[in-house]
Amino acid sequence: MKLTPLDIIREFGGEIGGDGREVWLTGFANLRDAGPTDLSFYYDGRYEAALYETKAGAVLLPKGFTFREGRAPQNVVWIYVDRPEHVFYTLVKRYKARPLPPFGREMPNFVHPEAQVSERSYIGAFAYVGAGAIIEEGVYIYPYAYVGNGAVIGAGTIVYPHAVVMPGVRIGKECIIHPGAVIGADGFGFYKGDGRPYERIPQVGTVVLEDAVEVGANTCIDRSTLGETRIEEGVKLDNLIQVGHNVRIGRHTAIAAQTGIAGSSRVGAYCRIGGQVGIADHVEVADHSSIAAQSGISKSITVPGRSWRGAPAQEVRRQLLMEAIMRKLPDLYPAIQKLEQLISQNQ
Amino acid sequence: MKLTPLDIIREFGGEIGGDGREVWLTGFANLRDAGPTDLSFYYDGRYEAALYETKAGAVLLPKGFTFREGRAPQNVVWIYVDRPEHVFYTLVKRYKARPLPPFGREMPNFVHPEAQVSERSYIGAFAYVGAGAIIEEGVYIYPYAYVGNGAVIGAGTIVYPHAVVMPGVRIGKECIIHPGAVIGADGFGFYKGDGRPYERIPQVGTVVLEDAVEVGANTCIDRSTLGETRIEEGVKLDNLIQVGHNVRIGRHTAIAAQTGIAGSSRVGAYCRIGGQVGIADHVEVADHSSIAAQSGISKSITVPGRSWRGAPAQEVRRQLLMEAIMRKLPDLYPAIQKLEQLISQNQ
Amino acid sequence: MKLTPLDIIREFGGEIGGDGREVWLTGFANLRDAGPTDLSFYYDGRYEAALYETKAGAVLLPKGFTFREGRAPQNVVWIYVDRPEHVFYTLVKRYKARPLPPFGREMPNFVHPEAQVSERSYIGAFAYVGAGAIIEEGVYIYPYAYVGNGAVIGAGTIVYPHAVVMPGVRIGKECIIHPGAVIGADGFGFYKGDGRPYERIPQVGTVVLEDAVEVGANTCIDRSTLGETRIEEGVKLDNLIQVGHNVRIGRHTAIAAQTGIAGSSRVGAYCRIGGQVGIADHVEVADHSSIAAQSGISKSITVPGRSWRGAPAQEVRRQLLMEAIMRKLPDLYPAIQKLEQLISQNQ
Repeated sequence: MKLTPLDIIREFGGEIGGDGREVWLTGFANLRDAGPTDLSFYYDGRYEAALYETKAGAVLLPKGFTFREGRAPQNVVWIYVDRPEHVFYTLVKRYKARPLPPFGREMPNFVHPEAQVSERSYIGAFAYVGAGAIIEEGVYIYPYAYVGNGAVIGAGTIVYPHAVVMPGVRIGKECIIHPGAVIGADGFGFYKGDGRPYERIPQVGTVVLEDAVEVGANTCIDRSTLGETRIEEGVKLDNLIQVGHNVRIGRHTAIAAQTGIAGSSRVGAYCRIGGQVGIADHVEVADHSSIAAQSGISKSITVPGRSWRGAPAQEVRRQLLMEAIMRKLPDLYPAIQKLEQLISQNQ
Repeated sequence: MKLTPLDIIREFGGEIGGDGREVWLTGFANLRDAGPTDLSFYYDGRYEAALYETKAGAVLLPKGFTFREGRAPQNVVWIYVDRPEHVFYTLVKRYKARPLPPFGREMPNFVHPEAQVSERSYIGAFAYVGAGAIIEEGVYIYPYAYVGNGAVIGAGTIVYPHAVVMPGVRIGKECIIHPGAVIGADGFGFYKGDGRPYERIPQVGTVVLEDAVEVGANTCIDRSTLGETRIEEGVKLDNLIQVGHNVRIGRHTAIAAQTGIAGSSRVGAYCRIGGQVGIADHVEVADHSSIAAQSGISKSITVPGRSWRGAPAQEVRRQLLMEAIMRKLPDLYPAIQKLEQLISQNQ
Repeated sequence: MKLTPLDIIREFGGEIGGDGREVWLTGFANLRDAGPTDLSFYYDGRYEAALYETKAGAVLLPKGFTFREGRAPQNVVWIYVDRPEHVFYTLVKRYKARPLPPFGREMPNFVHPEAQVSERSYIGAFAYVGAGAIIEEGVYIYPYAYVGNGAVIGAGTIVYPHAVVMPGVRIGKECIIHPGAVIGADGFGFYKGDGRPYERIPQVGTVVLEDAVEVGANTCIDRSTLGETRIEEGVKLDNLIQVGHNVRIGRHTAIAAQTGIAGSSRVGAYCRIGGQVGIADHVEVADHSSIAAQSGISKSITVPGRSWRGAPAQEVRRQLLMEAIMRKLPDLYPAIQKLEQLISQNQ
């Protein structure tokens, strides 16, 4: 890769500032790590300190950005564009993204004769594609990916090494299943049978992932008892998440690592859920909810668009107030003790 | 599948109610999702609202169940039986359960010449069975299941794709090991050695799973340092659980997802433990304990049969009272401030 | 194995006490489980009760240890040495450690012709070594271990079954990667792109593990967006841990199971972090910090060498005091209510 600020302006529009000299850009880096041949970008006030100290060769800035007087670092070419992050990531993707393997089949692999596999797909060594499974065009099945009988992998989807797609699971288009994810294992349900206290409830439902869903490494999504566990379009799940049977997650919701959602709960659309959150079974979380890390949701959230925190969770303002008072308790304690004395004297 | 209410009565006993007409049942569904050709069931008061609105073709009800006057939905055949859930799940299992693969060996696989593998077992493609390992009758070893040297898989056990059974681990009969579970990795133990601050303590013990144990997807059970980590008969572990070295879990205890049990702790029999619970090392949890989700158990629970909640956990009633008061703290705070003034004035 | 107390003294130095008789030791056990032909050891006051009741054949004791009068159990040979635990574990390792497989290649496997693989290494059946990958001397690549294109596995490192080392990841010498660990999956980062609300930020950085790092079963370490996620020398990670992109963990830090560290955070050297801890993104944890299990670290810890607990975490003393008062709240509540009355009467 060799790129100049002018190349960028020509493609994305915008203006060049600073000393405007020609600079060959050969790498990408954030403001703090960048050197004189790196392109960097700035769009978020949290990184302003880094901007004023950067040693980057060129920095993408939002149009109309103005430096505090006299503080712009020297020897940096400024490139004013719409949406610097979009320009930056588009270029990173183009020049630095890991190449995907060529279409074709590495050997040995196991593709059942009754599976339908597009010619235009990659089947890695040791991949397994069961009877009746469908691998659509542009799909990447990495080594050790298991695609069970009758499972469907939609066009353009990537299934990374060791991901498990159990029989009958349907995955949409342009999804990414990261290594070690398990989709469609049996849900955790038991009843009092004839013999031992826990008899397994047969889990004969399935899992459906709509388009553009991402499932993080070692994340588990259980199949439903009957019907389906459904992850709607655009949902992004980080690593080591647990999604119980019969759960439904609404479109474009993003969930951070190690969160767990127990059986039959419904999470709305456009929610943002932090890491290590627990959501109990049979609850509903309204659309556009925001839930802080480590929260516990044991009752339904019915009003959309609010922010929650704590275990059990409250609206974030009240929870923060409660936490602040709790932290004062050690200081208040002597007062409380005196008051107890006061009372007993008054009685 | 084609089934009538009469077929069910003939097999399980019971009586038919409602309009008693003949109906061909071709599917199974819960009360809310069921349509006119589905069989459904009711046995738990939590679903009563759904019962009164169901559109199922037929519903299994407990013998002696009576509808609130005038509220029984029309066009549903009622089938009164002992244990509706048992009848329902037995039928679901019979008609809808995923078929297990036929006994035999998919190719390629790796079965060491010194392994003992029953003829009546399934060895999936890319399965690995090490030297000295024993695969008993009726066992299913799915693709990518790893059975290390000297490990034993008891009769009727299912080892799903990507499950790892490390060398020497012994698994009982009729167990289910879900995808990605890791049984018998080295425990997390170090001592101050000659070189770096952490020298690995050799983990030369093993893991024993008794009969009818279930291990969830991506759950980890570490081998013991010396002796054995033991999971007793009928224990059910959900996904992404951590069981440390030297732990023992008593019979018929069930544990929900993402819970962790640190080294050398002992969990009693017939316990019910929620998700994301943490149990510290070297503690004991008495039989029949019930522990709410996200609790933290840092000290032994010595009295059996009680319910616990919170981190650190208390008995559930006291913990709920404490939580209620905590939630009131923001309202009490002005009062407390006034009282502080009162005191300082009194001094 | 057949070992006498004299053999031990000869190798490690020390003195024999008790009745000093000859005893053939054939096994190793902790004080509680040991029988008359087992060697055991004592060095930590927490196990003193077990020492006074042990039935071991011989017990390693610290030099200068003195029994409480009249309480030393009979029929045990005492072996006084420097660092009993070191002697004990050295012997356990020598006599009982699982044998590693012989160097060589099990078939079938996939080693890309452009990979560099030392002759003196073990490549298990179904292992995958991609183009440009380097497997140094003394490395063990177990079945189903995936070593992506261009990844480097340093000398003496063990990669257990189902571990995933994604392309370009660099692993140092003498590391242990436990089963199911995923190193180098894409970090969880999105920006507002042209289409759906979440467009994936390309993750073109990598992961570097320095020497003597251990990564627990099913633990995930994400690659960085740009630059590298770095785990420094001697770091020990337990099972099911999440390490986000761009994180850096300082040398000889140990972290217990199910803890999560969000993106771009930096954990110092020589820290001890309990299980199920959550560390937010973009925070720093100073060297030698100690963090209790289930804590939540949402702000940077800048002072080194302190102990933290709670969520949000406070210094451990203050947090314990706060927890103690919280547990008293149910008892204080009637008093508070009376005081509220008092106030309203005074007004």
